Amino acid sequence: MTLAVRYTAARTLDTAPALDVPPGPGEVELAPAYVGICGTDLHIFHGDMDARVAAPAVLGHEMSGRIVRVGPGVEDWAPGDAVTVMPLRWDDTCPACRAGHRHVCQNLDFIGIDSPGAMQQRWTVPASTLIRLPASVPLDRAALVEPTAVAVHDVGRAAVREGEKVVVVGGGPVGVLIALVARAAGAEVRVVELSAHRRALAEEVGLSTWDPAAEDVPTLVGEWTGGAGAEVAFEVSGAAGGVDTAVEVLGVRGRLCLVAIHPRPREINLHRFFWRELTLVGARLYARSDFERAVVLVADGTIPADRLISKVVPLTEAPAAFEALEAGGDVMKILVDCTDTTDDTTQGATA
Amino acid sequence: MTLAVRYTAARTLDTAPALDVPPGPGEVELAPAYVGICGTDLHIFHGDMDARVAAPAVLGHEMSGRIVRVGPGVEDWAPGDAVTVMPLRWDDTCPACRAGHRHVCQNLDFIGIDSPGAMQQRWTVPASTLIRLPASVPLDRAALVEPTAVAVHDVGRAAVREGEKVVVVGGGPVGVLIALVARAAGAEVRVVELSAHRRALAEEVGLSTWDPAAEDVPTLVGEWTGGAGAEVAFEVSGAAGGVDTAVEVLGVRGRLCLVAIHPRPREINLHRFFWRELTLVGARLYARSDFERAVVLVADGTIPADRLISKVVPLTEAPAAFEALEAGGDVMKILVDCTDTTDDTTQGATA
Repeated sequence: MTLAVRYTAARTLDTAPALDVPPGPGEVELAPAYVGICGTDLHIFHGDMDARVAAPAVLGHEMSGRIVRVGPGVEDWAPGDAVTVMPLRWDDTCPACRAGHRHVCQNLDFIGIDSPGAMQQRWTVPASTLIRLPASVPLDRAALVEPTAVAVHDVGRAAVREGEKVVVVGGGPVGVLIALVARAAGAEVRVVELSAHRRALAEEVGLSTWDPAAEDVPTLVGEWTGGAGAEVAFEVSGAAGGVDTAVEVLGVRGRLCLVAIHPRPREINLHRFFWRELTLVGARLYARSDFERAVVLVADGTIPADRLISKVVPLTEAPAAFEALEAGGDVMKILVDCTDTTDDTTQGATA
Repeated sequence: MTLAVRYTAARTLDTAPALDVPPGPGEVELAPAYVGICGTDLHIFHGDMDARVAAPAVLGHEMSGRIVRVGPGVEDWAPGDAVTVMPLRWDDTCPACRAGHRHVCQNLDFIGIDSPGAMQQRWTVPASTLIRLPASVPLDRAALVEPTAVAVHDVGRAAVREGEKVVVVGGGPVGVLIALVARAAGAEVRVVELSAHRRALAEEVGLSTWDPAAEDVPTLVGEWTGGAGAEVAFEVSGAAGGVDTAVEVLGVRGRLCLVAIHPRPREINLHRFFWRELTLVGARLYARSDFERAVVLVADGTIPADRLISKVVPLTEAPAAFEALEAGGDVMKILVDCTDTTDDTTQGATA
């Protein structure tokens, strides 16, 4: 019997039989190998998204795995193929899709939130969502392709250019990935993060960090930039103070890329936007090209994925891992190992 | 004796002899003909900018006039030339200037705020600020070149393209000018304005308007755009509700150009920026190219400047005009006529 982790109510997960949906036309059945726990998963676990998530719900959208079966009409894919999934299904008819922005389709189905996710031992998805993984990428590291695709999209939205000075406010997994992708684009990067553990990890992967509790970040940016201010800031903290910092560090014509989710309105210094002709750019999810670029960055080591994985827990221990993350603590990315070691058809999945 | 209008203290203007500064090297002495009263002048009059404006201060930066004398080393200009002034002096050394954004120089001298303005019968300015006026443009209409340059800059910052749907929130002088410039760029435009008088005037110059007190603007935009939302919104109202409207009417990847000055922080729906991947673009002042384009738009009638001038008052009545504007009422643009009818050297100034 294959298993799934399900969200059943606020702060409650259980394990239950996987959904086991035979792949229909254009679909594939996957055996997920590793599934990362994302901030959004934690929001759901916290009960904050009950209006959107229909419990019991299988979570998970940062994944790697192998194809088990292909449905009718699926070409180019075969059992055993290593894949990740771009977990978006758009309607192709809404104004956003018609304008070419399908990833922000006005009726988007985000797989893993709006429909069943990857945290199970069998998962059926449209073949159109598959992204091929090269054999050189271990599947645990490949679970970081999805958040890396977010970072690639964000850096693209901010149009980071070589030689620019970039401040990333918030050094959690997405903030660190943005910093790494921006650095790979030739930018000089500083990460602003309260947690000493996260700062230490960011430094370990070669990033420079600042502690906003100990230092006045705008003053540091002023010194760093000779009074000009930074060209780009990323707001990845989700905190009111993070927004203020991101606005304050920018120089004339600076770009603030808004990555974090702020459910409630925030007070913004609009005068600064006027005075310095700043730009605020919202960024959400990713396009296929972002995912494909993310695979390359994970494969070539630009993203040191192994260093960002704090822990891998077996599927049956996923509920405890959510509780640990909810409590905070010294972690970056936790992966759930969904490999079904009793299943001959997926023995290759952890290779 | 030539006269000047001076701000001496909150809600107090007087008239006094003009400053009469002989033009030094690279400078010209002008005889201002018409000077528009701008919202910023009203802020100063209100006492809100006393920290920046050193009283007694000659206000005024929306002007037209003729050259009276040229200082040493000034070429290309001669007495009698009809001009307007781009009232900016930058330091050419700050990071903003070095990055090519001199109009937002970090040590900008805005002439008419930071140094003496045009509301006087003699005014000495650097020749580098002059913009030539074609003989075909009456000088009263030419006083609208400066606010038109603001509108040209704003429409450029928002990158308005042909066929786009544009909502202008706030139908005062700058809002109407933005609407006219955006329409000239091929956009479909709606102006949102509370004042019935200003809506009527906007309609008179061919613009479509909505009354936000009578109608739900986001609903109207939804109907107008087939559910897509507008491509561009301009926030020209300065009001919290105006910001909300401008955010709410935008479709996926919509651009909000922030024109109005919001001295205090405003609550912004950042979730909407994330969800729809919106962009907020701050816009301030203008570059020389914006001014030159504005001259063309006033000259060719794209800007029906005569329709936007509510009243022309003699210089000695400027204090009363400020009081009337401060009290609100049914006005768009008021010009102060600075022509010195006793002065033979400027008899051509009203031609």
